[in-house]
Amino acid sequence: MRIAVLGTGAVGRALAGRLAELGHEVSIGTRDVAATLAQTAVDGMGNQPFTVWAQAHTQVPLLTFADAAAGAEVVVNATSGTVSLAALTAAGSDNLAGKPLLDISNPLDFSKGFPPSMSVPDTDSVAERIQAAFPTALVVKTLNTMTATLMVYPRQLADGDHSAFLSGNDAGAKALARELLESFGHTDIIDLGDITTARGAEMIMPLWLRAMGALGTSIFQFKIVR
Amino acid sequence: MRIAVLGTGAVGRALAGRLAELGHEVSIGTRDVAATLAQTAVDGMGNQPFTVWAQAHTQVPLLTFADAAAGAEVVVNATSGTVSLAALTAAGSDNLAGKPLLDISNPLDFSKGFPPSMSVPDTDSVAERIQAAFPTALVVKTLNTMTATLMVYPRQLADGDHSAFLSGNDAGAKALARELLESFGHTDIIDLGDITTARGAEMIMPLWLRAMGALGTSIFQFKIVR
Repeated sequence: MRIAVLGTGAVGRALAGRLAELGHEVSIGTRDVAATLAQTAVDGMGNQPFTVWAQAHTQVPLLTFADAAAGAEVVVNATSGTVSLAALTAAGSDNLAGKPLLDISNPLDFSKGFPPSMSVPDTDSVAERIQAAFPTALVVKTLNTMTATLMVYPRQLADGDHSAFLSGNDAGAKALARELLESFGHTDIIDLGDITTARGAEMIMPLWLRAMGALGTSIFQFKIVR
Repeated sequence: MRIAVLGTGAVGRALAGRLAELGHEVSIGTRDVAATLAQTAVDGMGNQPFTVWAQAHTQVPLLTFADAAAGAEVVVNATSGTVSLAALTAAGSDNLAGKPLLDISNPLDFSKGFPPSMSVPDTDSVAERIQAAFPTALVVKTLNTMTATLMVYPRQLADGDHSAFLSGNDAGAKALARELLESFGHTDIIDLGDITTARGAEMIMPLWLRAMGALGTSIFQFKIVR
């Protein structure tokens, strides 16, 4: 499958690398290709410069948001929730039309330090804003509730015995998202319902962040025991 | 231990009943004793009139918020988060001073139907507001992340293999809360940190509510797999 991953941070790299490893034809999208290639320092989140990752993933071309989305059958939004609408606008509404759009963003505003505040009120979500701005895209919120490495290698923790969520209005797009998650190794994938249920998935972040602080690791996951 | 449970809804009844069963000297507090005793109908949440519960728990006196708190060594806030400050004000700041105050409330505003909105913004929490309003009370947020019956009988689900959280500024009050939770049967009790971490525990409610809808049951629980 031809998949565009928008965003070159830890989440975008994890998704793009894993999807390529599974045999998909993957591109990774950025706002400014030259600027991304010019990174030389470790970023504020501890990520190596993009070129370090790119050298290990030569099968994944770095393209503009628009060029990446234009050639894709499926688009993955792995940008920060505070800039996702701008990134997808740059990708171009025509390049998203009719396509499954997996939204992995979180609406975290770190501008005032830690803990971040939510950049979207509890009566809305980034996923809903994306769906409203791009009504013909088939938005599915998923995977935002865990750290990047567990998104794509879930079996490294408790042999995958933990939960992932889906929220979206299109059953076909959710089925495709479920298939991709299963190909990563996820075994407990809960369909929460329509795109408004993404509010719940996004609002779990404050607890996630405090649990990370309490546990001293990001390698943990929520499981819905039932 | 002498424990006052404030609130006569499902959560207050569950806590008061279980604490009495475990041998504590428990009272249950309400705003208006006569009005609570005059209930004759099943309420909007499906709870039987209070007197039905009271007849099965004759060892638990029904008192005003103030009378219940005055005689207690530990106070449990089992009122709705939208009225907790009013209930605790009625209980009386002198009756809370220096005492562990377990806050089990959730800031859910159902005035516009389902799903409820959060009555407190993400930069605050009911627990913090209570701590700010009653600075000498030893507030511990706990148990609000699960349905009432699992708060007090956790082993009825997966033999208790799921998580509870503590948030609070006072180590002694958190140790007491942990002891009470363990006496209920909880085995995985995670201390998230100071009272500001209650934001995370309160903001999990939107996901909890949507998971309940997706699963068709309230008998489920979050587990932090690590």
